[in-house]
Amino acid sequence: MTMGDRIYLFDTTLRDGAQTQGVDFSVADKVAIARELDLLGIDYVEGGWPGANPTDDAFFADPPELRNATFTAFGMTRRPGRSAANDPGLVGLTSAKCDAVCMVGKTWDFHVDVALNIPREENLELIRDSIALIVERKGEALFDAEHFFDGFKANPDYAMRCLLAAYEAGARWIVLCDTNGGTLPDEVESIVRAVAERIPGTSLGIHTHNDTDNAVANSLAAIRAGARMVQGTLNGLGERCGNANLVSLIPTLMLKMGYETGITADGLRRLSHVSRTLDERLNRAPNRHAPYVGESAFAHKGGLHVSAVEKDPASYEHVEPSTVGNRRTIVVSDQAGRSNLLARFREIGIEIDAKDERINTLVDLVKRREYDGYAYDGAEASFELLARRGLGEVPDFFRLQSFRVIDERRWNARNELITLSEATIKLDVGTQSVMTVAEGNGPVNALDTALRKALLPVYPALEGLRLVDYKVRILTPNDGTKAVTRVMIESTDGYGNRWTTVGVSANVIDASYNALHDSITYRLFRALGTGTPDASSDDR
Amino acid sequence: MTMGDRIYLFDTTLRDGAQTQGVDFSVADKVAIARELDLLGIDYVEGGWPGANPTDDAFFADPPELRNATFTAFGMTRRPGRSAANDPGLVGLTSAKCDAVCMVGKTWDFHVDVALNIPREENLELIRDSIALIVERKGEALFDAEHFFDGFKANPDYAMRCLLAAYEAGARWIVLCDTNGGTLPDEVESIVRAVAERIPGTSLGIHTHNDTDNAVANSLAAIRAGARMVQGTLNGLGERCGNANLVSLIPTLMLKMGYETGITADGLRRLSHVSRTLDERLNRAPNRHAPYVGESAFAHKGGLHVSAVEKDPASYEHVEPSTVGNRRTIVVSDQAGRSNLLARFREIGIEIDAKDERINTLVDLVKRREYDGYAYDGAEASFELLARRGLGEVPDFFRLQSFRVIDERRWNARNELITLSEATIKLDVGTQSVMTVAEGNGPVNALDTALRKALLPVYPALEGLRLVDYKVRILTPNDGTKAVTRVMIESTDGYGNRWTTVGVSANVIDASYNALHDSITYRLFRALGTGTPDASSDDR
Repeated sequence: MTMGDRIYLFDTTLRDGAQTQGVDFSVADKVAIARELDLLGIDYVEGGWPGANPTDDAFFADPPELRNATFTAFGMTRRPGRSAANDPGLVGLTSAKCDAVCMVGKTWDFHVDVALNIPREENLELIRDSIALIVERKGEALFDAEHFFDGFKANPDYAMRCLLAAYEAGARWIVLCDTNGGTLPDEVESIVRAVAERIPGTSLGIHTHNDTDNAVANSLAAIRAGARMVQGTLNGLGERCGNANLVSLIPTLMLKMGYETGITADGLRRLSHVSRTLDERLNRAPNRHAPYVGESAFAHKGGLHVSAVEKDPASYEHVEPSTVGNRRTIVVSDQAGRSNLLARFREIGIEIDAKDERINTLVDLVKRREYDGYAYDGAEASFELLARRGLGEVPDFFRLQSFRVIDERRWNARNELITLSEATIKLDVGTQSVMTVAEGNGPVNALDTALRKALLPVYPALEGLRLVDYKVRILTPNDGTKAVTRVMIESTDGYGNRWTTVGVSANVIDASYNALHDSITYRLFRALGTGTPDASSDDR
Repeated sequence: MTMGDRIYLFDTTLRDGAQTQGVDFSVADKVAIARELDLLGIDYVEGGWPGANPTDDAFFADPPELRNATFTAFGMTRRPGRSAANDPGLVGLTSAKCDAVCMVGKTWDFHVDVALNIPREENLELIRDSIALIVERKGEALFDAEHFFDGFKANPDYAMRCLLAAYEAGARWIVLCDTNGGTLPDEVESIVRAVAERIPGTSLGIHTHNDTDNAVANSLAAIRAGARMVQGTLNGLGERCGNANLVSLIPTLMLKMGYETGITADGLRRLSHVSRTLDERLNRAPNRHAPYVGESAFAHKGGLHVSAVEKDPASYEHVEPSTVGNRRTIVVSDQAGRSNLLARFREIGIEIDAKDERINTLVDLVKRREYDGYAYDGAEASFELLARRGLGEVPDFFRLQSFRVIDERRWNARNELITLSEATIKLDVGTQSVMTVAEGNGPVNALDTALRKALLPVYPALEGLRLVDYKVRILTPNDGTKAVTRVMIESTDGYGNRWTTVGVSANVIDASYNALHDSITYRLFRALGTGTPDASSDDR
């Protein structure tokens, strides 16, 4: 361990992580995740492979503005038989909107012989030319040495010459990849030590996969051997068994090994949030057993142990949970819940005295709602409304009398299957009773349209409101379609503000309505404060 | 690495694994899992803590007969202030129906001072007496040295004396426990090396937790340092972040490090089965990304890559999948080329000539469907139906004429909001036309119920069909509620088979119907092959 040494963090969630079976990022997902990574303090955000698929093309056509992170594109060394400057793939990369390019190339003699089927010397030229072109046109190139550990074991001399070709051509980082994930930590450590005799550790990175459950340990072994950059993904996404999990690595590097990274102590406290946000985006249940950030990571069971833990947590917990934005959970005590709730109130700007008796009522309410399936972790707007309603701050901008939604699917005269959705809704707005009907291309769309048709004349502030994401999850999957349904809706006001609300019900339409109701109420509360319909009508 | 050395495997799934939040073993579960572990070739099966809870009492009152494994009970060293032979807990253990007892005791001076609150010398006596009594009455004792690594870092001399007290009293194994999971692999390795200078490695075991994502690596580090026994759990069950995952460790020890265990090559081929059986028992979806045994562990994506893998799998896969009872899978996705699709066909048993012109039609169809939002990566049953339909193998078991779903939400007479869903469906089954109506607690549940009400009399094979998961995702989130909706449904036939189907539509009800239709068709195709409704009616 070298205290204070700087480790560079390279995130490939949006590129290698996108290879995960069952994961399918939209452009909006990529934008949101890139921003989270940048805010966290990651050094390199690899956005994808421009030219490889329509999603990455669209993402790179209009990349997010990042504060600190180096926005990086992935690509491949040039093909044999033409110069780097005439290789269409490579030239495409040089014009991509990015700050750096990470180029993958072969270093295992066997793959050069069999997969590329070119002389080994020519592969060195491919690497040299491609890196040089990127350095010349983009400023910064990185080299991902594919199958490096297998290559080094088979032919250390040749594998080393591939690395040196990239290094001498000006690559900022030489990244040693355990592409098929089969190398064990002691092998990684000794091979990286050997490489570090020729290329300084401050130019060496490590890229591992979890096929033997050692991706994190392999990354740490390479760092012990001198590497100073690590590639990984959030929550260990990645093909097969996943990549090295940055969420596990970061706290170990910073809190246990004393390394510096681009992440501050404040940034580190965002880690649990970042990890959960990714899962919400992917509509997956977060892994409650995840190291550092899982819901159970600092769970203590009841009984004698708890008082011992409370007396001296440090001797039962390997790190302080709040350092990574997580919390201790003790089954028999709700103290953790109370202080967590107070902390969250402060976060959203609700000033309330710690001794205020309404806090206990709110703690109970949050617990009961979460027991029922509400997830306030990813639905901050609904949480804020819940809290402010508990404090009597949120007016009823409107009240539902009833709704009815009809979906009909049938064959039309031209033998096509067509489906129609129609929603009827009856609301009280102030002293008025309003009834509207609307069609939509689905029940939620019809309901949303009817609702806004009723409200817009009274509340012009709803003009720009738009739903940008809609997610449904079943909470007790063993009951199949009979289970409780949770809907999360992300909305925008058309001015760049976004908020997420949650609704829960056995009925998906009901749950959707609840989330829609919160979304509209939140927008009105932001626009009008505690104003009444009459006050707002001045805006018209 | 010392080729051929024997490593002893100690499974604590039924004791430490039972601490997992959300896991609750019945006695029947314990019996079934103990038998699986024994068949696999595990050396020690720790069944629980007799005297600690009714389940463990019942399990030890009538333990399963094991072929080879040493059936082990867990317990604690005697309390201060009385002799071992007069300690009720310890005496209970000596009469438990088991072959060995694993005793946990303290080795960290701080916990002796604060938690036990006794002189440090007295703790040595507790250990010595308790181990001696178990050795005398049961023949074999093991010593779990709680918080050993923290203890050794704080006071190496005292921690070592605790181990020696147990060793000299006759403990067969001294197990070094990283109880709070905070120790890193290099620390584990150096501390175990230090211990191995005083106690032979053939008497040392290792017990780790996954709080830094290093439980497997820590176990391997201890083995490199000389330990010859490892404690862990199936699938890494355990409190907080779990224990060391034996399912990951076993193949690494046997296939990569060349160690002998009690498991034969045939036994190792049962590993994937054992891992999945545990999840079935716990009614959890298996982790498809689990090292070695996960469904995705040997999955390959991407066109060019797939033809390379088929040419030479060994250079892309770190072990041969069948050695652990798993298999290679070729993932179909929008990157799919012809070779992916052909490989996938072979996997699901579709024989088709590589030159068959229908393949191009199918490639186009898959691409078009994926462009529309279908995700066949994750919905294998829908993919198989798509392929077999393209080859004319799947009969129309039923044909939808029309459906109508009504959801109504209103205030009832008692001022409660209530919501009702009702579905009407009209189908052709063979030459019959069937019309049914059903209520549900949501539109999909109502539709599913009406559909099965219509089909069950004709197709008794649908009797056990049940939905186990239902997921909805919006695919072009920038269109909000107007976007296209993708529904994925996971179903079971009630006999342990699970399959996933997908439906896409602008309308969530439509998309759900499409996924339901595929799910039922897949079940009928599996049960009846290309049989018609008339053929199947023989089953009634």
